[in-house]
Amino acid sequence: MKQINIGIIGFGTVGAGTFEVLTENRKLISDRVGMDIIVKKIADLDIESDRGIPVSRDLLTVDAMEVINDPEVDVVVELIGGLEKAREYILAAMEKGKHVVTANKALIAEYGHDIYRAAEKHGVNLGFEASVAGGIPIIGALRGGLAANRIQTIMGILNGTSNYILTKMTRDGLPYNAVVQEAVNMGFAEDPPTLDVDGTDAAHKLAILISIAFGSPVSFKDIYKEGIDALTPDDIRIAGDFGYSIKLLAIARNSGDRVEARVHPTMIPKDHILANVNEVYNAIYIEGNFVGPNLYYGLGAGRRPTGSAVVSDIMDLARQIRLGLKGPVPPLGHFHPPQKQISIEPIHELTCAYYFRFSALDRPGVLSKIAGILGEHNISISSVIQEGREVKGSVPIVMLTHEAREENVRKAISLIDNLDVLTDKTMIIRVEAR
Amino acid sequence: MKQINIGIIGFGTVGAGTFEVLTENRKLISDRVGMDIIVKKIADLDIESDRGIPVSRDLLTVDAMEVINDPEVDVVVELIGGLEKAREYILAAMEKGKHVVTANKALIAEYGHDIYRAAEKHGVNLGFEASVAGGIPIIGALRGGLAANRIQTIMGILNGTSNYILTKMTRDGLPYNAVVQEAVNMGFAEDPPTLDVDGTDAAHKLAILISIAFGSPVSFKDIYKEGIDALTPDDIRIAGDFGYSIKLLAIARNSGDRVEARVHPTMIPKDHILANVNEVYNAIYIEGNFVGPNLYYGLGAGRRPTGSAVVSDIMDLARQIRLGLKGPVPPLGHFHPPQKQISIEPIHELTCAYYFRFSALDRPGVLSKIAGILGEHNISISSVIQEGREVKGSVPIVMLTHEAREENVRKAISLIDNLDVLTDKTMIIRVEAR
Repeated sequence: MKQINIGIIGFGTVGAGTFEVLTENRKLISDRVGMDIIVKKIADLDIESDRGIPVSRDLLTVDAMEVINDPEVDVVVELIGGLEKAREYILAAMEKGKHVVTANKALIAEYGHDIYRAAEKHGVNLGFEASVAGGIPIIGALRGGLAANRIQTIMGILNGTSNYILTKMTRDGLPYNAVVQEAVNMGFAEDPPTLDVDGTDAAHKLAILISIAFGSPVSFKDIYKEGIDALTPDDIRIAGDFGYSIKLLAIARNSGDRVEARVHPTMIPKDHILANVNEVYNAIYIEGNFVGPNLYYGLGAGRRPTGSAVVSDIMDLARQIRLGLKGPVPPLGHFHPPQKQISIEPIHELTCAYYFRFSALDRPGVLSKIAGILGEHNISISSVIQEGREVKGSVPIVMLTHEAREENVRKAISLIDNLDVLTDKTMIIRVEAR
Repeated sequence: MKQINIGIIGFGTVGAGTFEVLTENRKLISDRVGMDIIVKKIADLDIESDRGIPVSRDLLTVDAMEVINDPEVDVVVELIGGLEKAREYILAAMEKGKHVVTANKALIAEYGHDIYRAAEKHGVNLGFEASVAGGIPIIGALRGGLAANRIQTIMGILNGTSNYILTKMTRDGLPYNAVVQEAVNMGFAEDPPTLDVDGTDAAHKLAILISIAFGSPVSFKDIYKEGIDALTPDDIRIAGDFGYSIKLLAIARNSGDRVEARVHPTMIPKDHILANVNEVYNAIYIEGNFVGPNLYYGLGAGRRPTGSAVVSDIMDLARQIRLGLKGPVPPLGHFHPPQKQISIEPIHELTCAYYFRFSALDRPGVLSKIAGILGEHNISISSVIQEGREVKGSVPIVMLTHEAREENVRKAISLIDNLDVLTDKTMIIRVEAR
């Protein structure tokens, strides 16, 4: 085999980036894989718009099935995003015996199981490196370089938009809404950036990472998620005074039979390597039982980085084909997948340290009332700051706790929020001291 | 094939770590690769000492050739370190048609070419993930996830001992010798830690990274290196005042026909992600023409992390064997290696910004003399600090320059150091602003 032919479905940002990598680095890519990678066809509903790169009209079609049915196409690259259509195309391509590469995180997170099964049934490979953290080759690392490890912890900054917003809020002390507006105006964020800021996007990526780390798909809807929109510049400043940064973290932790899996704003010590991941950058921190802590950092989105990841999957396929691959490489990197389904620990069973910011009237006895309720729920306080200045008639009281159980925290805070002296809902932020 | 048999030569720190991974994570490893990985034989001159893990006496031999000649052994794992013996064993194993995995950075950096050729000749694979940055799967990333990129820049903190020393000097303001002594006493550093602190170890690793990034071996001896032993707590403090951290960086930069390749103490901006890599951690920062900046971080040495990397290579081989691999995977990840040998740019042709600390008598006209000589050599100054306080009868004058040519810097500093008013050799530190 002298060349490998690919067909691209979806010629938006990532599709154009993929084509650009294959064109601009053509020589280098063929030196590395030992054969040419040729784009045979590109399907998109819009074949008129200029993508800023020269593309022969002959390659373009509005009919995705033309790509899938082309007998010369060896690999179908799905880059349309979304769920139903993408799934249909991928399954159709696999049925035709074609290998598939995709950047579709929502699809892999929510329907991965069906797609893995189809790949196995039809004896084809599935590449989805681009589905998590764009240009960072984290899936390759989990399937390859870290494969000898039991994965204990994954903590990821997996959404660039929310990391950019938090970075700006931290550096400039600006409120959430102002930063979002600015990011939308500058084209850094979608309007509104709902799936980015509410944790859904990060949860999709976490579901994929967990499935590779543990060898079987998880139920995406069981991943707890909480967004960043309730955070205030005060929380960020006070967390800073305690020596912490606030990041939207996607966290998975192997707790024996089950896996903790959650996405929420998290306080981490300022000298933690993740605390220094700023702007639109993504990073994944992983602990394995032999390798210890590892971090992978880079751009998690964008035409060129995501294109780089898509093409790395195509190159991997090309090498396998060149080396005479028999039978598919298992998508989750397990030739003998674990028999047991992974179950996710419900959030109310979580144990961690907490930050509380109470908004209370400045009256005698308030602190003792709050502390009393916490004590009754086995929540022990490690430090308290009561700031002098009033905000809208109330004073902020901030507490850090020792490790406590989420269930108890929720009960206690609900009781506290019902006190007459409380003027607003209590802000709760989970703390990762490790 | 139901199992893959390996023989280990060298049962020191890394050998014991490798055995430990294979034992402790046996089930997980066989699930992932779909077959058992069995240790058939372990050779070491010392088969008496306790390694802290249970090993059957039957596995042990003092004769390395017994491992190599065993027809049941599929993969020989070389972990004795050093050059001549290790090379002899690896070549003998390849001649017997065995795949080889090694953690030997000096060997790969200095004799890689011979070994790659032998692997090709005998149609076997060579794994050396553990030779660079211990547990960080950087070789896998370069060969795999980043393969679609032209690599533009590599900047690595590749030696844990020197990073630990610099971290302690920075945090505690201690002089070099005191920290080294403490590190030696605590068992963190060898006594003396020459190859760690003089840049040799980092240069070995850089040579390997360059060869993979560019597809052909480089001449190790052409890599410029400079150690950390001349740095003072004053330099670190003043660099901090300018907004920089000092790290021992191994730097490679693609400058068209040639490659910059150098190891030396380097000032990098404090908000650079590499500046936040502390203690014994290693990290590699890579820029590719599509992926942009990437960072890989973790433990660069130690029994368990290095064992993790060795076993990941064995697992990779096991998977390839399972998938019916035909013909060897090229060690440098290029099926068509570039025809041109990579040549390294001589250090005197380097262009970068510089930090100078002059030790001068506190006399009128000194600054103008120094500035005059710099000006004559086309070195333009971006900032100057003249500190009031005298150190041993002289005052430190510190300058940062704009980009200048190393050749000119050396000439100018040599003239300046000959001035009567200079009381000590000038400290020169290269600055990476990017």
